[in-house]
Amino acid sequence: MKPGLYLPARPFKTAQQGTDTMGNPTAAMLVIGDEILSGRTRDSNMYFLAGELTRQGIDLKEVRVVGDERDTIVAAVLALSAAYDHVFTSGGIGPTHDDITADSIAAAFDTPISVRDDARALLAAHYAKTGAELNEARLRMARIPDGAALIDNPVSTAPGFTIGNVHVMAGVPTVFEAMVASVLPHLTGGAPLLSQSLRLLRGEGEIATPLAALAADFPDLSIGSYPFQKDGVYGTNIVIRGTEGPQIDAAMTRLAREVGL
Amino acid sequence: MKPGLYLPARPFKTAQQGTDTMGNPTAAMLVIGDEILSGRTRDSNMYFLAGELTRQGIDLKEVRVVGDERDTIVAAVLALSAAYDHVFTSGGIGPTHDDITADSIAAAFDTPISVRDDARALLAAHYAKTGAELNEARLRMARIPDGAALIDNPVSTAPGFTIGNVHVMAGVPTVFEAMVASVLPHLTGGAPLLSQSLRLLRGEGEIATPLAALAADFPDLSIGSYPFQKDGVYGTNIVIRGTEGPQIDAAMTRLAREVGL
Repeated sequence: MKPGLYLPARPFKTAQQGTDTMGNPTAAMLVIGDEILSGRTRDSNMYFLAGELTRQGIDLKEVRVVGDERDTIVAAVLALSAAYDHVFTSGGIGPTHDDITADSIAAAFDTPISVRDDARALLAAHYAKTGAELNEARLRMARIPDGAALIDNPVSTAPGFTIGNVHVMAGVPTVFEAMVASVLPHLTGGAPLLSQSLRLLRGEGEIATPLAALAADFPDLSIGSYPFQKDGVYGTNIVIRGTEGPQIDAAMTRLAREVGL
Repeated sequence: MKPGLYLPARPFKTAQQGTDTMGNPTAAMLVIGDEILSGRTRDSNMYFLAGELTRQGIDLKEVRVVGDERDTIVAAVLALSAAYDHVFTSGGIGPTHDDITADSIAAAFDTPISVRDDARALLAAHYAKTGAELNEARLRMARIPDGAALIDNPVSTAPGFTIGNVHVMAGVPTVFEAMVASVLPHLTGGAPLLSQSLRLLRGEGEIATPLAALAADFPDLSIGSYPFQKDGVYGTNIVIRGTEGPQIDAAMTRLAREVGL
């Protein structure tokens, strides 16, 4: 990346660990599905959501992955919903017997759940168009907790929903991504944040000392160090994040000088 | 997959949710790193570990991803270590100022941590061979909690460690994978489990009713349903898991008949 080119980045400061340093809204993600834990399916929704939240100025602070087990889902939703401003869930809202997310969320919020007319109307219109039958199994996808707001699903119609601070979305990546796009514009993000990165063909061990000194001298900046190793080449990417461009410039200039570039 | 071809699979039964049904050892994973939560890095260690544990007969029950924050790491390690037979961590054991996993684990176990002679000897031999200096930053990688056993790292030498039921490993995928290979042979796995799968070009909504009936009639089997949608083709993979091959055969034969194959 050229000096002076700033990209939005998730803020963090090593000096103030354990809290959200920029006053940004916080978020957690709950991935639900035995198929992820068994290694059958490779989750891609976490990576997608992490990037989207960063661009929105919302700090993703924790992710949990749990199986299709009601008590486990309820406990995780309650813990994350209490600890963070937003919770995004992925998976378990389809038509089959192992899709128990909606009922588990209703249980967590101690709210009744049933087939709701607004969701049923969406599905009825969709299946009328495609010629498929809106059978009992598919009607399960219209089960929405009382008081929840529907999340638009432009890919396959069956809606997600938001209840309290929990946004409940599908696990199929194309549908999950479309639902995230439906939800995010309604949420308030934080300040735009900036970053610069520097790719060094040196091991972390050679630059750790100047990096630590730099972090101490620029307490308002976050300085991250990410080793890589690929095709016999190894090195470290340094990422400096903050809200003040000139400060990031100053830190990056000093780093480049100290590592002898 | 041909009928009669069984592959090891992670066991679960929809009839007995919330517990480990086969008496297999249980495990959790803790992924540590701001770079995962910011979307800068796409984690691949979860998917790798999930597959390896399944093959070993160890049931991965939960994954958490947290940032480089000491209190957060300590709380997650304590919670997971108390709830599961094994905990596998990934990330944060390099030489830089933001690598705080080893110290956080020591804090969680209320154990002193310092540069240990056995780990230092490994690093000294490695850097003597490569000609690089074993400086103060690199020596950080020899910080090991008292009472921990080292985990061999054939890729880049700096060891992981096991303390109590927690296995602490590097985040760089090649190193993580090598450390998993070092640890797993020492752990006791469960019974080998079997699975068959069937790929159907039908939506879940069309097969949900026969699937639910099948699950009710075969309570010893786990019947999972995984929708896919790719390049305009959509359908559902059905996976039937259990310990008895003939039972799986019977269920799969009935399913194929009922969905009209």
